Amino acid sequence: MSAGEDQLIGWLRRRLQRLGSDLLGDDAALLEERADWAISVDQQIEGVHFPPGLDPGVAGRRLVSVCLSDLAASGAEPAYGFLTVALPRRYDAKRLLTGVLTACRRYGVTLAGGDTASAPRGVSLTMTVLGRRRPRCRWLRRSHGRPGDGLWLGGPVGESALGRHLLAAGASFDGRSVTLPRRHRAPERWLRYGRRAVRRHLDPRPQLELGGTLARRRRVAAVDISDGLAIDLHRLCRESGVGADLEREAIPVSGGLEYWASALEIDPDQLMLAGGEDYVLLFTLPPRGRPADAASRRIGTLTERPGVRLGAGDEAVLLPPRGWDHLAKDRT
Amino acid sequence: MSAGEDQLIGWLRRRLQRLGSDLLGDDAALLEERADWAISVDQQIEGVHFPPGLDPGVAGRRLVSVCLSDLAASGAEPAYGFLTVALPRRYDAKRLLTGVLTACRRYGVTLAGGDTASAPRGVSLTMTVLGRRRPRCRWLRRSHGRPGDGLWLGGPVGESALGRHLLAAGASFDGRSVTLPRRHRAPERWLRYGRRAVRRHLDPRPQLELGGTLARRRRVAAVDISDGLAIDLHRLCRESGVGADLEREAIPVSGGLEYWASALEIDPDQLMLAGGEDYVLLFTLPPRGRPADAASRRIGTLTERPGVRLGAGDEAVLLPPRGWDHLAKDRT
Repeated sequence: MSAGEDQLIGWLRRRLQRLGSDLLGDDAALLEERADWAISVDQQIEGVHFPPGLDPGVAGRRLVSVCLSDLAASGAEPAYGFLTVALPRRYDAKRLLTGVLTACRRYGVTLAGGDTASAPRGVSLTMTVLGRRRPRCRWLRRSHGRPGDGLWLGGPVGESALGRHLLAAGASFDGRSVTLPRRHRAPERWLRYGRRAVRRHLDPRPQLELGGTLARRRRVAAVDISDGLAIDLHRLCRESGVGADLEREAIPVSGGLEYWASALEIDPDQLMLAGGEDYVLLFTLPPRGRPADAASRRIGTLTERPGVRLGAGDEAVLLPPRGWDHLAKDRT
Repeated sequence: MSAGEDQLIGWLRRRLQRLGSDLLGDDAALLEERADWAISVDQQIEGVHFPPGLDPGVAGRRLVSVCLSDLAASGAEPAYGFLTVALPRRYDAKRLLTGVLTACRRYGVTLAGGDTASAPRGVSLTMTVLGRRRPRCRWLRRSHGRPGDGLWLGGPVGESALGRHLLAAGASFDGRSVTLPRRHRAPERWLRYGRRAVRRHLDPRPQLELGGTLARRRRVAAVDISDGLAIDLHRLCRESGVGADLEREAIPVSGGLEYWASALEIDPDQLMLAGGEDYVLLFTLPPRGRPADAASRRIGTLTERPGVRLGAGDEAVLLPPRGWDHLAKDRT
């Protein structure tokens, strides 16, 4: 640890003390709180998970949100976070930490420890989060699905991947407003959808409230859509030992997805089924169950027969884990 | 996550299932175990914390050991580990994971979760560990020191930094034996010390047993020597609101340190006071207290007067946090 890193930790600690939470004094954070814990860890690497040059505050917020999405999928209530950062020398570390602290405060996370290092090459961020099991609640588990259960999605999919494509095409986000690439001239309505997609990609919101509501029920399977609807559904099915029938038309997509997919020459089904990073919950409910929230949509049914089928009757095709591109390849 | 990463996690999960511990099925690890937890996180970055090209198995073991040293300094008993890795495409990930699992088994850690990503640039590893408070034990805390307490060191310091210098000079370690740079011709006794220093640097052993023994006592302050005796002692003093008198001659150093420091033209005091990465415990005991183990040495006394003094009487000099090099500069 360099003198600069010690200074940075001093700065962070004074900020945490002002918030009334200083757990940074020892080699380890010491938690004397009797609870059942859900623990998850995620990393964000510049050039892999977010575009190089992204505003450090946005990168910090994104790290926290992505990590908390795993707690949402467990039904847990966020409690503590541990942060490690490896940063190039001239990186604005305070801006990054301010982003992390802002997101922590928003979701009720106490930053309880971490580690800093200088990185010769690029930004690398890792976060570990602990969430409590809520009172009178159960864990959501991938293995809780049963044949006949309804399959639900907590929000539209594909929008985040669209945002990723727009960023690759030159869009940018400074933490407040999105600028789209100049060559995309379109009616304001479509531009608005495009800007929302970029924001959704860089500043996703973990569905903690939905997870908490579902955790009050007796038996809910859940997973968050991080790698894509197809592969995450396959994972849920594998852990539950079931298959699934998926209704193509029932899958919620955000406004403008078709328009932008066409403008960028991407298959919209590819965005929807394999895009990933949507951070909405995919969950199951017993056959007649309905979630309390208005945004969730039923998109299919779990089946005894293994495999994930897309479409009905003779039209149905097996959806491989990797989504539409692999499927398309398999069909030709 | 790529197909390769899914495969890798599948391989890891089968290995963990054979060990009877599979917590990898859900988005988060779900721990329903009532305990007080010490939680710490550490990272190891190629080119920063370990030399490029280091055997992946050695890198994996080192990550676990370094991280557990923080639990040793808390007196905790290792329980769970969470691993994130960012690896270049051709890196031997299975060899790395085997190293991690070997160290986890050695120290009683159950690998309970993690995340993998491909890294465009260099290996980056992060580990979070949870340790239980042992039955009828207290936490060791940096803030537990009082004026008059004896200051103790759990083993020699400076050897790891010597090993780092030998590696920079061309030494290598394949996980079993150390090869020293050819130009260092010396009697076998000195070569043996040199090889041991390299091994100590790359394969440190966290003092978990010592930490556990100390945790049975009423009030022990402790910190592990990760950044250097001088700075880590300053940290302990700051948290306890005390100063310290340090006896230069009492500080244990390993055999061959003077010989090798001279051969490599390094100030041996610099290695000892500011070398770091020794991962031995620096701890306090009430004035007449003695530790149960034979390896620990008393190296000084905590004082009401702030600041860390090296030497006695008129000869005493103030030791700044950054160690001997800064001190030397301050004196000229």
